[in-house]
Parts: sequence; C-alpha cells; structure tokens
Amino acid sequence: MTAASITAAPLTAEAFRPFGDVIAPDGAPDMMINGGRCERFHDLAQLSFEGGRAGISIFRSDASPLPYVLELMERHPVGSQAFLPMSASPYLVVVATDDAGKPGALHAFLAGPGQGVNYRAGTWHAPLIALEAAQPFAVVDRIGDRFSDGGNLEEFSLPEPVTVVIPAA
Amino acid sequence: MTAASITAAPLTAEAFRPFGDVIAPDGAPDMMINGGRCERFHDLAQLSFEGGRAGISIFRSDASPLPYVLELMERHPVGSQAFLPMSASPYLVVVATDDAGKPGALHAFLAGPGQGVNYRAGTWHAPLIALEAAQPFAVVDRIGDRFSDGGNLEEFSLPEPVTVVIPAA
Repeated sequence: MTAASITAAPLTAEAFRPFGDVIAPDGAPDMMINGGRCERFHDLAQLSFEGGRAGISIFRSDASPLPYVLELMERHPVGSQAFLPMSASPYLVVVATDDAGKPGALHAFLAGPGQGVNYRAGTWHAPLIALEAAQPFAVVDRIGDRFSDGGNLEEFSLPEPVTVVIPAA
Repeated sequence: MTAASITAAPLTAEAFRPFGDVIAPDGAPDMMINGGRCERFHDLAQLSFEGGRAGISIFRSDASPLPYVLELMERHPVGSQAFLPMSASPYLVVVATDDAGKPGALHAFLAGPGQGVNYRAGTWHAPLIALEAAQPFAVVDRIGDRFSDGGNLEEFSLPEPVTVVIPAA
C-alpha cells in the first residue's frame, strides 16, 4: 500500500456523470422489440470521433495485481472511448476531470456485471484495470491515423503512486 | 420441430464473412498496450451509419424457447449493427444474403463466449436469439430519427417456419 490511497465506490450513472456515461440497463427500457421479448435501452453514450471514425476493437487484459497501484493516467482529447465488458466479471475504473492540463482529484469506481463505461473526450482515466485473467472488453473508440493514437493520447505520470482500495463486499 | 430446419455451425470469421464481421480476439493482437499487460485487437468491424450517427444501446432479451422456431427475418439497409455480448453465455445468429429483396439461403451460427457479431448494412438476420434469461448485449448501430428504425428496418416473414437446431456439444 502506498501513502496515498483512494477507495472504489459502486459505479452509478449519477456519480460518473462528470466523466462520461455508464452503459447499462437502468430503470424502464426505452422500447420493447422483437415481439415484446427484448428490452432496448437506447443510445446510452455521448460518442465523439473528431477527425476520425467510429471503430470496434477488443482489449484483452491480464488481471491486475491487487491492491492496484496507479502510477499513470491517460486521456484522449479528440475522441470518446467506451469499454463494454464481454464477461460478467467486475473491473476497476479510475477517472478525473481536467485541471489545467493534468488530472484533478481521482475518483475510483468498481464496475459490476453488465456495466460498461464511456469516457467523454478529454476525461482523464487509468489504463484498463481488469480483475480477471484474459478479461475481454469491446472498445468503441476513434479510429485515427494509426491504432487510434495519432494525436489522441496524452499520458500523465502521477507525482506519487496511489493505491486503489476495493472495499470488502 | 417444423418441416424445415437448419443446423447451427460454430461461428468463425471465415464462415461469417459474407454477412459481416466476427468481433473476437483471433490470432495475434495488433498491438500491446498498457505496458504490455493488454492486447489490442484493432478495428474489427466494418461500420456504417449512413444518414445517421453511431450509438451504443443495450438489448436485454428473454431466453428464447428451444428449439428456436424462426418465422421472421429483418435487415437494416442503411446501417451496420453490432452485437457485443456482455456475458459469457452463447447465443444464436441466423443470417442470409439478399436475394432480390428477400432473404436467400439461411445460415445459422452458435456464437460462443467472447464473440460479438457485426451485421453489414443490408444483411438479413433473425431477431436477437438469446439463450440465457435477461442476457445483455451492447449494440452499436445507427441512431436515426427515432430508435434507429426511421427508414432503416425491413422485415420479411418466412413462407414457412424454420427450426434452428443446436447440435449436441
């Protein structure tokens, strides 16, 4: 455990609103489709792909060692980035609004089954923090010149590492 | 069981190519990210959103009674539609290329854990056939005038129902 730590909160749309969207079925569906057998929760994320186009990729990540020690934040200034878990395993999300070109206060969330997130363009966020081995995510982000990172990736090394604490369930 | 039946095949990129894309990690990743901890399989689907924009919705479907009896096919002439399962449960996909404004020969596939599909614009497909109760999918499709269906939905009732057979594992 490092000197600095933050504790992950449950992921809710309200708490996440300053950073982007929670992509999850919430409340009543917007419409029923397929003869009433399927709920559609419609258009759940504010997407942007300035100067590029939308694409779907897959990220498959090692499980992160716990407790997770955060050293680096990143952001994509000209495109949103959505993470859609392709399993029911939880994962960690750490975000911050911008404070004069660097991350402001860090906020950690524990995303549960069926919860995706969309980072608004410019939202500082930790790299993908998977908790399961080979955990797969579909990622909807801006396809640019090369692997999405042409002019669309900024990184910031934290002045001191921060431990992300997951409360006992 | 109806008089007509088709048998679901395993879902592979090669078999699905006439209809769209399989969105899954396949072979070597296109790049390693996050300090070598995460594989990125890059830009896996041919997306189109003619006259609209990209959006992310969630479909949450009842489990379909088995054996599945298919009576209706549909297509979206001016937009691709990607289904990204948010659980590790399998689901059924039935597709057809177009034959003079109606579905040609039907092809059924059983999609496994970690496999999404993207229907190319104009590909005839069955409604979402979930096999698990309340099975959640993220859907990346064209947001148009209203709930994506303004001028972007055609349906075709099959002249006789077709049973989709899932082979024993």
